[in-house]
Amino acid sequence: MNHETGWSVFPLRVRYQETDQMGVVYHANYLTWFEIGRTEWLRSRGWTYRQIEQKGYMLPVIDVQIKFLLPARYDDAIRIYTRSMDYSNVRLDFEYKIYRIDPYLGDADRELSDLPEEESGKQLLVTGMTKHVWVNGSWKPARIDKELPELLRILPEGRRGGKAVE
Amino acid sequence: MNHETGWSVFPLRVRYQETDQMGVVYHANYLTWFEIGRTEWLRSRGWTYRQIEQKGYMLPVIDVQIKFLLPARYDDAIRIYTRSMDYSNVRLDFEYKIYRIDPYLGDADRELSDLPEEESGKQLLVTGMTKHVWVNGSWKPARIDKELPELLRILPEGRRGGKAVE
Amino acid sequence: MNHETGWSVFPLRVRYQETDQMGVVYHANYLTWFEIGRTEWLRSRGWTYRQIEQKGYMLPVIDVQIKFLLPARYDDAIRIYTRSMDYSNVRLDFEYKIYRIDPYLGDADRELSDLPEEESGKQLLVTGMTKHVWVNGSWKPARIDKELPELLRILPEGRRGGKAVE
Amino acid sequence: MNHETGWSVFPLRVRYQETDQMGVVYHANYLTWFEIGRTEWLRSRGWTYRQIEQKGYMLPVIDVQIKFLLPARYDDAIRIYTRSMDYSNVRLDFEYKIYRIDPYLGDADRELSDLPEEESGKQLLVTGMTKHVWVNGSWKPARIDKELPELLRILPEGRRGGKAVE
Repeated sequence: MNHETGWSVFPLRVRYQETDQMGVVYHANYLTWFEIGRTEWLRSRGWTYRQIEQKGYMLPVIDVQIKFLLPARYDDAIRIYTRSMDYSNVRLDFEYKIYRIDPYLGDADRELSDLPEEESGKQLLVTGMTKHVWVNGSWKPARIDKELPELLRILPEGRRGGKAVE
Repeated sequence: MNHETGWSVFPLRVRYQETDQMGVVYHANYLTWFEIGRTEWLRSRGWTYRQIEQKGYMLPVIDVQIKFLLPARYDDAIRIYTRSMDYSNVRLDFEYKIYRIDPYLGDADRELSDLPEEESGKQLLVTGMTKHVWVNGSWKPARIDKELPELLRILPEGRRGGKAVE
Repeated sequence: MNHETGWSVFPLRVRYQETDQMGVVYHANYLTWFEIGRTEWLRSRGWTYRQIEQKGYMLPVIDVQIKFLLPARYDDAIRIYTRSMDYSNVRLDFEYKIYRIDPYLGDADRELSDLPEEESGKQLLVTGMTKHVWVNGSWKPARIDKELPELLRILPEGRRGGKAVE
Repeated sequence: MNHETGWSVFPLRVRYQETDQMGVVYHANYLTWFEIGRTEWLRSRGWTYRQIEQKGYMLPVIDVQIKFLLPARYDDAIRIYTRSMDYSNVRLDFEYKIYRIDPYLGDADRELSDLPEEESGKQLLVTGMTKHVWVNGSWKPARIDKELPELLRILPEGRRGGKAVE
């Protein structure tokens, strides 16, 4: 996780299963990649979403926006960039950038790391945003400042929105 | 297809495969349901998307927005409402409403039909919008008025946007 | 459900999402279609798998075999044939045949029904078999004759295997 | 790739999208993991399946067998073991073992590598086998010894079956 930009970066390869008969990644799969981005964003900050569910809380999606610029293709080396965009005591929003890097530059399999945004040879394929609400096991809204206060500490100060004081 | 409202309606049952460990439909699957909505909207107007691809054209997604109100669950009886929202010679946009109907009302398996929007016992789960561009087999923009003019005739007059004269 | 043969039949259309860049249905999707076959086989006998899970039992897969003869393609009209192959107090096995019917014969959208196996114009695409065990909510083996005896009544007499007395 | 055993090993994390409402990985996803195993087995031997398709050949699945011993769960650290089991000039078969490793041993994110089979703390979850035929772009059988002879060199000598001389 790059603490200046707040972006965490996670690499993956496009699976054959993710393609469709247009010869590109089926568009719904980017939502799955965003989910991987959230999982790894949390892990990069010392939490796991598995832990959060074990404590009895869930973070369902309530809003999605995606823009598709270029299609990803089978076996492409992908980078998922994820950061929290805004949050409050009851909400958490993320933004994403999906890049393809040049697999012939030899770094396709390099470690998960804090890549500079200006990494050369990469193309922006997709951008997106997801909004979430905290709920408990009965799908009732949960106040994270009261119920999981230790989680608030990993969220970036500057991004706390007006709704944070709700 | 209801010619007054422009909505076509298609029924489906939630597959076990579509659920996740929250016990609800994984959110990316609604994009697949929207795709089914487009396929059946076209069929209800006498075209198939298969034909369009056989003629050498494709309609990739460039923009998606989804709002999640209530979760769908395994075996729920779902209705996908689809209509074209706006279009031009190079674009075609759709909007969607996903409803759950009460499977105990006995109509869960009834035929694809033009249900009145005010059908009783149904709950709005998800709304969405997708934007598309026409491209040819080489992924270059295609002008539908010149290349597939017969397709323009099935699009609803009133919804032709300002961009239609591009 | 055809009570002579034990096969239940369920129709579906191939989704664009189910294709891959070979231009055919990605092979893993047939397992999802088998699952739909089981769901609808149960429904045709007056039960739902949803009810079974609500009573606290699950039927996970322990063994799969699939043979692929011909590929299904986007928008094909498919028929899933499902029947129970063998069962005991702790197990339940199914077999499947996946057919494509000729969508130009005009029956692609006809009702779920007990089609004769010799229906004309259909091609056998895939055959398969799945084996399952009954477990309770803690994933411990469950004896269906003691815990869900009413379920045993819907299973076909002649198919009860030697293991039934376990 | 471990040249003594022929197994290549590839790590992945279970995606939330891969779970179902039983709280475990939906069984069809293991076929997708097997596909990843084949892709990475080829890469570990200096080829990519992408290259093979660019040369005009495909390797569709004709037969699948899977045995499910234990379920994988969300965020589990998985190891896909893949090796070619048998092959001829027209066929190529693979076998697979899916393991969960203990993510608390600290190696969950370690590099793709030739892990010893006796790696401690790992549980065998699933075993499987897939059979494939070589076809050309028109889905006609292809003879690999004549059309892609350089590919034969990466296949393990000892595993060449009787059918190899077909």
